[in-house]
Amino acid sequence: MAAQAAVAEKANFINGLNVQNAVQTIAAVKADKRLAKFQFRARNRWINGGENRSTIRDFYGAGAEDTSRTETFEFTNGEPPVLLGNNEGANPVEFLLHALAGCVTTTFVLHAMARGITIRELSTELEGDLDLQGLLGLDDSVSPGYEQIRIRMNVKADCSDKELNDLIAYTQQHSPVCNTVCRPVPVVIEQMLK
Amino acid sequence: MAAQAAVAEKANFINGLNVQNAVQTIAAVKADKRLAKFQFRARNRWINGGENRSTIRDFYGAGAEDTSRTETFEFTNGEPPVLLGNNEGANPVEFLLHALAGCVTTTFVLHAMARGITIRELSTELEGDLDLQGLLGLDDSVSPGYEQIRIRMNVKADCSDKELNDLIAYTQQHSPVCNTVCRPVPVVIEQMLK
Repeated sequence: MAAQAAVAEKANFINGLNVQNAVQTIAAVKADKRLAKFQFRARNRWINGGENRSTIRDFYGAGAEDTSRTETFEFTNGEPPVLLGNNEGANPVEFLLHALAGCVTTTFVLHAMARGITIRELSTELEGDLDLQGLLGLDDSVSPGYEQIRIRMNVKADCSDKELNDLIAYTQQHSPVCNTVCRPVPVVIEQMLK
Repeated sequence: MAAQAAVAEKANFINGLNVQNAVQTIAAVKADKRLAKFQFRARNRWINGGENRSTIRDFYGAGAEDTSRTETFEFTNGEPPVLLGNNEGANPVEFLLHALAGCVTTTFVLHAMARGITIRELSTELEGDLDLQGLLGLDDSVSPGYEQIRIRMNVKADCSDKELNDLIAYTQQHSPVCNTVCRPVPVVIEQMLK
């Protein structure tokens, strides 16, 4: 009986995700679309030169302010010497690659679970091309942003090549960060009232 | 003499940035556009569920592979319980806000220096709206990415309101991460050759 219970318990997880919780979440969102509305937040403070620090903790989602986090995440942006800094941290465009890598990975893992596909290994390598003339304002025909970002995925999963290709395509179409990058998303900057 | 040298040394820095180095960098890029080409990189490994970790160190820029970094930066993506995780780290869409905050801040600081404007205080608060129906594939009319991101800036700088507004607008137009978000940037995903 104990062995059976252990098997049942194990079967509730695919790729480390609790299948029952996922099914409940999706059912809840289908029943009330307002639960799908999330608002994420970050606060940042300039320190000096190319160094600044963000704190991340609270967010709104599933109809309520989240209260699960017991500590605040802190991340420091910096710049290498060639970009006038002292390597105080990774720089913002590198953090964007980290965000993109993580989001593509988590989206892949989530939809693999939904399809009953077990992943054995998953890693990615990202590279993004950027022309500094944009940031420096030297050539208006050069976009200051990334020109292109490439993601190489190394996946070992219990599925056919066709299923794997379908899952990768679906991941690209449904990853929040990937779609924030590959589609135009409005950014509004306003001065805080004093 | 020592006091004069100290004053001259101090005058070479605005907002913590070495003005002479900045002038040299811009002159070098103007003389040879190839020096403006940068390639940034990240490597990510899935751990379990919504947890994965990136390492960031090497990049190409200013005509060479960078060798200035003596250690590798590591960042962990995680998810809160409401998104099937255990708060192993900030999540990817939150890291994107950190990247955006840092890039807008550094771009602002850089171009303030170029205009001879001293910044005394600079902080930002960001919020981004996301509808989970996109990620979950429940409604194809809902983009999986952010719908909008708002940045509230709190700035104290030695300039007029008009100069400040001009600088904020210029920052928005020239920040690499801001332009990666507000313009469509192609993302290519391919499987690694085994």
